[in-house]
Amino acid sequence: MNGPLRIGLAGLGTVGAETARLLISRSAELSLRAGRDLQLVAVSARARGRDRGFDLGATAWVDDPVALARDPRVDLFVEVIGGEGDPARSAVAAALSAGKRVVTANKALIAHHGVALARLAEEHGGAIHFEASAAGGIPIVKALREGLAANRISSVFGILNGTCNYILTTMEKTGRSFEDVLAEAQAKGYAEADPTFDVDGMDSAHKLCILNSLAFGMAPSLDGMHVEGIRRVTTLDIAFAAEFKYRIKLLGIGDKSSKGVSQRVHPTMVRHGTPLADVDGVFNAVVAVGDLVGSSVYEGRGAGGGPTASAVIADICDAARTLPLPVFGRPVKALERPPTLPIEDVEGPAYLRFRVLDRPGVLAGIARTLADHRISIESMIQRGRSPGEPVHIVMITHEAPDGAMAKALSVISKGDLVVEEPCRIRIMDAA
Amino acid sequence: MNGPLRIGLAGLGTVGAETARLLISRSAELSLRAGRDLQLVAVSARARGRDRGFDLGATAWVDDPVALARDPRVDLFVEVIGGEGDPARSAVAAALSAGKRVVTANKALIAHHGVALARLAEEHGGAIHFEASAAGGIPIVKALREGLAANRISSVFGILNGTCNYILTTMEKTGRSFEDVLAEAQAKGYAEADPTFDVDGMDSAHKLCILNSLAFGMAPSLDGMHVEGIRRVTTLDIAFAAEFKYRIKLLGIGDKSSKGVSQRVHPTMVRHGTPLADVDGVFNAVVAVGDLVGSSVYEGRGAGGGPTASAVIADICDAARTLPLPVFGRPVKALERPPTLPIEDVEGPAYLRFRVLDRPGVLAGIARTLADHRISIESMIQRGRSPGEPVHIVMITHEAPDGAMAKALSVISKGDLVVEEPCRIRIMDAA
Repeated sequence: MNGPLRIGLAGLGTVGAETARLLISRSAELSLRAGRDLQLVAVSARARGRDRGFDLGATAWVDDPVALARDPRVDLFVEVIGGEGDPARSAVAAALSAGKRVVTANKALIAHHGVALARLAEEHGGAIHFEASAAGGIPIVKALREGLAANRISSVFGILNGTCNYILTTMEKTGRSFEDVLAEAQAKGYAEADPTFDVDGMDSAHKLCILNSLAFGMAPSLDGMHVEGIRRVTTLDIAFAAEFKYRIKLLGIGDKSSKGVSQRVHPTMVRHGTPLADVDGVFNAVVAVGDLVGSSVYEGRGAGGGPTASAVIADICDAARTLPLPVFGRPVKALERPPTLPIEDVEGPAYLRFRVLDRPGVLAGIARTLADHRISIESMIQRGRSPGEPVHIVMITHEAPDGAMAKALSVISKGDLVVEEPCRIRIMDAA
Repeated sequence: MNGPLRIGLAGLGTVGAETARLLISRSAELSLRAGRDLQLVAVSARARGRDRGFDLGATAWVDDPVALARDPRVDLFVEVIGGEGDPARSAVAAALSAGKRVVTANKALIAHHGVALARLAEEHGGAIHFEASAAGGIPIVKALREGLAANRISSVFGILNGTCNYILTTMEKTGRSFEDVLAEAQAKGYAEADPTFDVDGMDSAHKLCILNSLAFGMAPSLDGMHVEGIRRVTTLDIAFAAEFKYRIKLLGIGDKSSKGVSQRVHPTMVRHGTPLADVDGVFNAVVAVGDLVGSSVYEGRGAGGGPTASAVIADICDAARTLPLPVFGRPVKALERPPTLPIEDVEGPAYLRFRVLDRPGVLAGIARTLADHRISIESMIQRGRSPGEPVHIVMITHEAPDGAMAKALSVISKGDLVVEEPCRIRIMDAA
């Protein structure tokens, strides 16, 4: 057994406090796992006095997280402050510049500054571990970076945001609107007071960016990523989806082909019986498709104190006993920067819903415009008849380029066939 | 980057040949992942001349795998010979005694001799990696040993044998008998000529033993494990199960409680909509329940050349770049040897089917015997009426000790109420 690993922890929110509690209360069993004593020697957080339900005992307090990162008493720096900017960024950079290991749960930091930080780690012989940054309780970072290392991965996709999945699942179960369910989730503490980051897809985008980097051996990049949240999903579309044997999930999807890499986050219809369709509530799930293993699926809790602290501590144990691994599975200079395939060039089927006045020629007009853009219809529902009144026409299309679909819908919405903006939800059959 | 890692590979069956092919054809990308050149320097197999579809080139041939393991040209020994006995065992022991790293896909070897081999590894500063030994394409060994290291795991269970799952799934889809489907699976190469190891549950038992060791921090042990295969599962029971919203799967189940560890392999009814119920065909899936992460689920292909070689190579990359980890997640002297909870003491509900002559008092007699053993009935089906003819009574019981259930069934089968041995299939609701 080597000497002790001295840990400095910056951030004592839900995740930080749970991490500290576990490091103190499970010291003996974690040290067995890690092969060394894990000692929490110093912490840093905004509010010093608050009661966090456990005794920090002899742990030192350092006001400035950057000073904590540089502190010579600290071998390993744990950053659970959050946010892509300072102080998280400068503190992590300071620790890496001092040749230390860093463990972080900060997806925004890795998505935005991952390459620069990985380069710092390589220059100074340190490393960054970030299992907790994507789908906390599921060891998916480790699976992609190490477990599937022999595979050429063509696709990685999944349900990456528990708040959105909880909202969509609850809308489906109760028939209540997005706004209504969101308000309740906020009241219960399942959603943030400002839910923008979750419901508009940016949280999923950061996580997808990290997973794609590991899966495809590329520098993490948000450039050209298409990001669309769940605000426009209605219970009407959820109900129609069910008639076609689909459920609506917010997916992050990454594909690699000879044309480049596509990265996108959007509401997606997944077919009943596929692995993602039955993932409910706050659960996350990721599917990775490798050429040797085929599809493999990873499901679990993606957020919350316990699952995220579990990932942070797994990284601490790794840092304690392994040589520094390349941050994104290969050295920075070997990371690829493949062209981005724009969303317009991604091909797939879609669900379309048009609100129209029930009069002769409307369906023919819509079908003609779709055909003009080489989009063909696989199946169609027109429910009820109320001459002169608004009704819904709902259809599933065959595969077509995303851009052609957007153009056709733009033409249709500018004409006089529909009484409101058409609704489109992309379909993923290969889940 | 360190010097090259020189690999000796013993066994050129499906897995060995695929491993060799990948080491040769993906040399550049694997070396990036591993941080060192991976060089296949020597191989050993029974049949030297056979065409394996790739060029072994400059790779040396060593007839005796034990000699290969000791060969000073070899830093890392890969054992994909199989079988708990020699030459696999002595070759692995020889490599470990020389302080080398070993990668193996051999579940029988780890289940039977894991502790002795781990001790050898510790004495000589080597290590054994065995991701490929359990659920090949799913990095579940890594998830339990490293990813969930911070958790206290209370339960691990899953579908661990693809052959059995293929047979059960096909019986369900086609309504054909076990014997019929097995014969077809053998003809197609999905099942071995001697299927005993798979269909009687021993393959699942070996894998469960390995997973339990990692999950519970215990020395791997087959002692006291209850093992029951799928030969007695009928299409009749599969159909009745569906009426109660269950599917029948062969599960390996490990539980840890204050009373000890229970390890068991048996056909199990899992409820529709739970993660294991939808795992079909040759797929494997494992659920691990940890106190921090709750349930997490891992699904993928468990066998075959590609998935197993994927796991072997992931282990090779790990061996190339990490310090030796404790083989079972903690040092041998810290491995627990908890008492085994006998199957008789495991509590759970069950499905019971009785073939009886349709005459008054039969149901009452069965119900009374069950009640005498403190087993209560949750629901019951008696289909059709044919006075004096054999009919089926099918019931789901409430939770009861396994031993009490066995005694009650023994009493019933010795009496004159039933015309054949009652059928019992255990139910797992907590999946």
